[in-house]
Amino acid sequence: MSDNPATLIGSSTELRSIDWVDGAVELIDQTALPEELVVLRIDDVAELVDAIRRLAVRGAPSIGVAGAFGVALAVRIYLPDEPGEFAQAMLSLRNARPTAVNLGRAVDRAASRVSAGFGAVLAEAFRIRDEEIAACWAMGKRGADLLEELSGARPQRLMTICNTGGLAAVERGTALGVIATMFERGQLEEALPVETRPLLQGSRLTTWELSRKGAPFRLLVDSAGPFLLARQSIDAVLIGADRVAANGDTANKVGSYALALGADRASVPFIVVALESSIDLDTPTGDDIEIEDRGAAEVVGFRGLAFAPPGTPALNPAFDVTPVDLITALVTERRVVRFDQGEALTPWPLKNGENGIDNGNGGGI
Amino acid sequence: MSDNPATLIGSSTELRSIDWVDGAVELIDQTALPEELVVLRIDDVAELVDAIRRLAVRGAPSIGVAGAFGVALAVRIYLPDEPGEFAQAMLSLRNARPTAVNLGRAVDRAASRVSAGFGAVLAEAFRIRDEEIAACWAMGKRGADLLEELSGARPQRLMTICNTGGLAAVERGTALGVIATMFERGQLEEALPVETRPLLQGSRLTTWELSRKGAPFRLLVDSAGPFLLARQSIDAVLIGADRVAANGDTANKVGSYALALGADRASVPFIVVALESSIDLDTPTGDDIEIEDRGAAEVVGFRGLAFAPPGTPALNPAFDVTPVDLITALVTERRVVRFDQGEALTPWPLKNGENGIDNGNGGGI
Repeated sequence: MSDNPATLIGSSTELRSIDWVDGAVELIDQTALPEELVVLRIDDVAELVDAIRRLAVRGAPSIGVAGAFGVALAVRIYLPDEPGEFAQAMLSLRNARPTAVNLGRAVDRAASRVSAGFGAVLAEAFRIRDEEIAACWAMGKRGADLLEELSGARPQRLMTICNTGGLAAVERGTALGVIATMFERGQLEEALPVETRPLLQGSRLTTWELSRKGAPFRLLVDSAGPFLLARQSIDAVLIGADRVAANGDTANKVGSYALALGADRASVPFIVVALESSIDLDTPTGDDIEIEDRGAAEVVGFRGLAFAPPGTPALNPAFDVTPVDLITALVTERRVVRFDQGEALTPWPLKNGENGIDNGNGGGI
Repeated sequence: MSDNPATLIGSSTELRSIDWVDGAVELIDQTALPEELVVLRIDDVAELVDAIRRLAVRGAPSIGVAGAFGVALAVRIYLPDEPGEFAQAMLSLRNARPTAVNLGRAVDRAASRVSAGFGAVLAEAFRIRDEEIAACWAMGKRGADLLEELSGARPQRLMTICNTGGLAAVERGTALGVIATMFERGQLEEALPVETRPLLQGSRLTTWELSRKGAPFRLLVDSAGPFLLARQSIDAVLIGADRVAANGDTANKVGSYALALGADRASVPFIVVALESSIDLDTPTGDDIEIEDRGAAEVVGFRGLAFAPPGTPALNPAFDVTPVDLITALVTERRVVRFDQGEALTPWPLKNGENGIDNGNGGGI
């Protein structure tokens, strides 16, 4: 653990939640926020897998980058003498979280450079990191442009779920990156993050990031979201994605689907903001997406405080799937797909080895 | 505070959450559950108003009975010498909670006997209590009959929100009373209570009541409800009501509307179980129902544990309104109104002074 969180936040004016610093992975322990800003320093694969599993690092883009750095750690530790251990480490990294498609992709991409040695693997991981950061800036711009197009260039009230900011995406974020861009353009009347039970990423993390920026916001419990969409003037709901299926169905934090139903009923635009690398054309529809059940413990209490009697059984689907007919548009670093206008998700011609953005001419960076 | 909670639970095999015992109101302090079964003994109006406000006693039927007993306390304390204080006490009782229509009605009904003295007021309060209990048994039977009609006589999976059991309704309950009846008929496969943020009545109270009965259940976070309705076989959603408007729109705990949207999308019956006294024909539609905002404190943490950074602003609508087009049926102690079949809520000819059920020939008691 570092005494100096500034190694992460560094010279950038943007929060950076994960990086490779002096030969090890450093990441903000998101389970300690908002009380403490703790930076974990990790040089072991099992420890990194544990950090991913217990959500010390979370958010599809961030865990992708964590996975890529994990490959670099594994190469340094196990190769060339322990190829069996290395293979085992790859498997445990790929399987640390089942829902996000980015993790497996980033691990595979970094691993594809193994024959060229540790330096090449680390360089690939850096490229993934830098592409994610650039992609977030691009998504922020495209998303804000879309909001202006949908509701006009005026201050907007924007609802969001979970944490999709710099913590989730190395820097800047996906859905929260769009909200940040709107704020910087003077077009954010108010952000409305929902708390996001069971792990309260909205309460703990999104409020922390919004406060850090000085952006106006009010928090609400998850189930108040659909009702406020019905009763108040809200301009859009913005969510991230753990996985977008080929037909546009989107897996994201549980509660997204309820907001989509509420937005649909209230005729409020519902917008998914995600990296191209979150699109999985090999998954035909949302029905084919595996949903983690993370067990009862997260539901029956929080940080040692019991909400329910001892031994209470619980269901805990960590994600849900929003069908494409409830989604107005998908915004990526490259494009806007207007599902509401009948547009479909077509394959984007990625260059070989590319993770979703071309640094040479990425849109609007 | 009594050392002997059995004074309340008494000789009945059913939990009784509020009663008049040896010259004072006794009630289970619902804020202490599930850790402790604390019985408060209250002989002062201000203390009773405080208990209603801080939800030590909650649930529309229970707070109605609390209000009626409160009138008896006020008569004993203030009449005949302090009529101004008495009037003030009536006002504070009526306004202890703004959304539930039962409270004002029960207070007014008990107060209508003031000229006949304390004994008459207390007798009226007892009648209200006994009518509520009988009504809950009748609702349980009608609701279970409806579920059999809708899905067949077989074990069902039933989702519910908040606490609508004996704690909310003196004994037995409204929506949870239907679930209890199904359990007693051998037709409950599983109850699926949602936790009900911010005050977690589902986690704390409904699980406690279901466990006490030995009924099978699993708890879930609120926002998982709509998704499980989409993905799993669930037979019905059952909710209580704080107020049913003349057109059938129903105000209930925030989160009910999201479940209704989820049930509608999944073609799962959505059933409101409420006392006739919760129907307010003077309120034309749900748009006319005042929704309490209970302030940020309940949202940003729970029992002293902070979920969000200090000073986080929050919206906290305690109730929401489910439009009648999303409601399959309303079940009361007297009737089933099938909104899904185009039936409308017509005035029920209450006898003078009657609170919703005729003890002589109440349905199925």
